[in-house]
Amino acid sequence: MKVYDISWPTFNGMTEYKDRKVLHLKATKTFQKDYVRESLITIGSHTGTHIDAPAHFLKEGKSIEEIGPLSCVGPAQVIDMTHVETCIDAEEINKIEIKPNMLVLFKTKNSQLQVNAPFNHDFIYLNAEGAKALVEKEARAVGIDYLGIERQQPNHETHTTLLEKNIPIIEGLRLAHVNAGNYFMWCLPLSIPGIDAVPARAVLIEE
Amino acid sequence: MKVYDISWPTFNGMTEYKDRKVLHLKATKTFQKDYVRESLITIGSHTGTHIDAPAHFLKEGKSIEEIGPLSCVGPAQVIDMTHVETCIDAEEINKIEIKPNMLVLFKTKNSQLQVNAPFNHDFIYLNAEGAKALVEKEARAVGIDYLGIERQQPNHETHTTLLEKNIPIIEGLRLAHVNAGNYFMWCLPLSIPGIDAVPARAVLIEE
Repeated sequence: MKVYDISWPTFNGMTEYKDRKVLHLKATKTFQKDYVRESLITIGSHTGTHIDAPAHFLKEGKSIEEIGPLSCVGPAQVIDMTHVETCIDAEEINKIEIKPNMLVLFKTKNSQLQVNAPFNHDFIYLNAEGAKALVEKEARAVGIDYLGIERQQPNHETHTTLLEKNIPIIEGLRLAHVNAGNYFMWCLPLSIPGIDAVPARAVLIEE
Repeated sequence: MKVYDISWPTFNGMTEYKDRKVLHLKATKTFQKDYVRESLITIGSHTGTHIDAPAHFLKEGKSIEEIGPLSCVGPAQVIDMTHVETCIDAEEINKIEIKPNMLVLFKTKNSQLQVNAPFNHDFIYLNAEGAKALVEKEARAVGIDYLGIERQQPNHETHTTLLEKNIPIIEGLRLAHVNAGNYFMWCLPLSIPGIDAVPARAVLIEE
């Protein structure tokens, strides 16, 4: 059994969505002064690797806890989209065989960016038609290797298309070191009832 | 396959260690005003369900990332200690058959406390001799159903005994709904390199 950590490391100076500087880690007790270490973590619901729940963009949308803490645990398919220059569209998705009920993860050029690089506003994204194609393929969740899954879509159709079907979106994955193929994913969100999105740890298991 | 969520839910008003009020969840964008929801999470490294790394109490101790993100994933044994009135000691532990390399989780009266009750300074704890007995039994990690694993031990011997052997400590579990017995645990910490402890999501699988 081989395990791949596909989480974005959380540290002061990490890349944040639109360089918003929400994340702040602070030592509140240090060994030098207190003979114990403790820390305070200030983190956004959308910092680093995180799961978006329907509540993020839908008025009556469910929270992560409502769709279930295991919504992103199960058979997963990593799809190589490293040739894509702008966005993953329906045509790209329809070239690939995707079984129903898969956790679908897109590996793109985004994974080549450093984890502390300035935010890249031109990141590879999934467009609205691509999201519709994934609904047709009965994806269980959709993950991407950047801190957003869409851009330049003022009505956020990629998010709403997926979230209206209670398909969670995993943003902030790191996939450069993972080959395309089939895995079992454990992506566990922190337990924060009612929230719109939540940081998570994600690993892939190759059996 | 049955899954038990054994995580302490994180919410404003949850029980915190010595009622310190570190945790604060705040909606930074609301659907009413912004047509999107986003949140800011201010959380201690020791809030709710979390894993203590050796770096918590040892000058040269390893961080969670250094002992490995899968340090609390594997075969787990839930041990019924609900009869214990004060502390779990070596005698209690030596009554139980514990195989080497187990993630050992103690279910005590602590699990009967509400998740938002004032901090109970008289919680059931693991004493130093109990920790030594677990080292002898080659426990891989030790978990308990309260926000601390020891009290009234000024030199924190329970922590140091375990952490010196790179045995992580999982605090803040919830076990009232789980029977004693054998499981497979997935307890995944957030990816925060270098930190002393880190919030985690923990589930038990019964096969």
